Amino acid sequence: MEKAKVLVGTGSRFGRNEAEELGKYAQVYYLGELVEDELEAVLPEIECVFTASWPSALDAGRISGMKKLRFVQSESAGVNTIPFRELGEDVVVCSNAGGYSQGVGEYAIGLMMVAAKRIMRLDRMVRGGEIGKAARGGLSGSIMVLEGKKLGILGYGGIGRAVAKIAYGLGMEICAYSREAVNEPGVRSFCGEKGLDQVLGESDAVVIALPLTKLTAGLIDGRRLGLMKPNCVMVNVGRGDIVVEKDLYEHLTQNREFFYATDVWWSRDGKESFSPDSGILGLENFIGVPHISGPSAHSTGEPARLAVGNLVRFLKGEKVGNIVRRSDYV
Amino acid sequence: MEKAKVLVGTGSRFGRNEAEELGKYAQVYYLGELVEDELEAVLPEIECVFTASWPSALDAGRISGMKKLRFVQSESAGVNTIPFRELGEDVVVCSNAGGYSQGVGEYAIGLMMVAAKRIMRLDRMVRGGEIGKAARGGLSGSIMVLEGKKLGILGYGGIGRAVAKIAYGLGMEICAYSREAVNEPGVRSFCGEKGLDQVLGESDAVVIALPLTKLTAGLIDGRRLGLMKPNCVMVNVGRGDIVVEKDLYEHLTQNREFFYATDVWWSRDGKESFSPDSGILGLENFIGVPHISGPSAHSTGEPARLAVGNLVRFLKGEKVGNIVRRSDYV
Repeated sequence: MEKAKVLVGTGSRFGRNEAEELGKYAQVYYLGELVEDELEAVLPEIECVFTASWPSALDAGRISGMKKLRFVQSESAGVNTIPFRELGEDVVVCSNAGGYSQGVGEYAIGLMMVAAKRIMRLDRMVRGGEIGKAARGGLSGSIMVLEGKKLGILGYGGIGRAVAKIAYGLGMEICAYSREAVNEPGVRSFCGEKGLDQVLGESDAVVIALPLTKLTAGLIDGRRLGLMKPNCVMVNVGRGDIVVEKDLYEHLTQNREFFYATDVWWSRDGKESFSPDSGILGLENFIGVPHISGPSAHSTGEPARLAVGNLVRFLKGEKVGNIVRRSDYV
Repeated sequence: MEKAKVLVGTGSRFGRNEAEELGKYAQVYYLGELVEDELEAVLPEIECVFTASWPSALDAGRISGMKKLRFVQSESAGVNTIPFRELGEDVVVCSNAGGYSQGVGEYAIGLMMVAAKRIMRLDRMVRGGEIGKAARGGLSGSIMVLEGKKLGILGYGGIGRAVAKIAYGLGMEICAYSREAVNEPGVRSFCGEKGLDQVLGESDAVVIALPLTKLTAGLIDGRRLGLMKPNCVMVNVGRGDIVVEKDLYEHLTQNREFFYATDVWWSRDGKESFSPDSGILGLENFIGVPHISGPSAHSTGEPARLAVGNLVRFLKGEKVGNIVRRSDYV
């Protein structure tokens, strides 16, 4: 039997082991190695695409010519760059949910701690020579001891669970907001609009670990920010556009002990941009890193291993995991 | 029976509850409320001193006049400011070990994470507009995923144990270096000089949670720094003088991916100073906060509650905890 043809997008991170494993079951084409003519020639034969973010070379016109395409395996956990409309309903799309969970979960906790412990503010003061022992009393009062505090986790998939596991070691109380109820010892479960409002209102820290879907875009707006404790720490490792930028900017300027620490950024012209429109980068209670929590997980090899494993299951006719619910995106 | 007279130093943090509790068993004098004459008059009658750091008003001359002094309860965990020589051997000194454990332990993990995840470096790059998506690959490779990594904990008292509990949730392997062997599931125990060298050599991150004694002063010198991994994260929540400043400065300038994140500072003229002699504040792989992890624990009320509880046990003739081994300091 002829092996299925798989096209691998640029920027994917799998190493020799994964390439060998995949090669057993597929004829593999690397987008970065194909000249235009070769690409045009092979596209009608491609059955699977493996990619980190959707390749710009595969535009609507080209997708319409990929008559044999049946399966898309994302190397990223998020699939918001996948052109579901153009792909049509018969193409199965799998995310790589779980592949980055530990790396992203750890990073979320790191962002929570740098904000809760006021580390950057204090380091800056020390370097600036602005601090004497006398001043420490007031400053220490703004530092949050996390044991016994409530952590709201929005989105309780792989990343949410990884966050919960670490937070449990910190002695925090876990409140999970998710589509389906969570039934785990030590976790309070919240669903629906009212559940979300309740989690936001009660939490001392909140981690956003939701995917960006039409349901979650703009979910955290001015009204919801207004429900939160004035000294809450909000961490975003989901997607920037889940939070309304101008509402957040306003909230941060008016609540100087409210911290927003983010790995993910607002998109402009369909691309994530590290240069926000508002003056948010000038605020001391905003902490931002350049969407790096996911990539940091690559050092363990776990993301590529899991994504290739899922694609191989598809190629072997086995049951795949992480099938994306198309209706969340179209 | 007349109540014992207790002198409370300035800067102690106990609230109304603790003052009431103490008042049941003692006649309490507050150093900050006494004029010179009053202080001179009461000192010969004082049986106990309760204080955060040793009050400068109680110099050697005055101590020699405190003929009834039997007991010193420190509100701080560290007792390195206590003048053991002047107090003499018959005065029992109790530390407040344990009172700050959770607050300090959490802070240590926060410092470890801000360094391991390169959060300050990345935030600075984003704010400076120095970052494009293309640059992230290389940067993400320097970020440490902590799960499965080795954490060396130097000093396995209350703080060391609090650090271990959180690190366990992170999935780290715990290596404890301590005076006496640790027998805990999941903890590898190391003792002695050789044990210390081994922990330093193997660890991906190290937390110093030792007290400053004559045994630990200068413990981390150039030779021992040289044993460590070039990208190790070293956190100090013990005391600054456990690490040799000039050796550390040299090590940090020569190993740019080695991070030192500290809450505690070197002393000058017997006082902790946030202005180090070396140019260490100019280094990007040095992170420093102004000895605030302990004070941050006061928001929970725990430190004062525990220290007053121990003093009350003394006053009631019960067994006290945290008696300091005098020979470690004299």
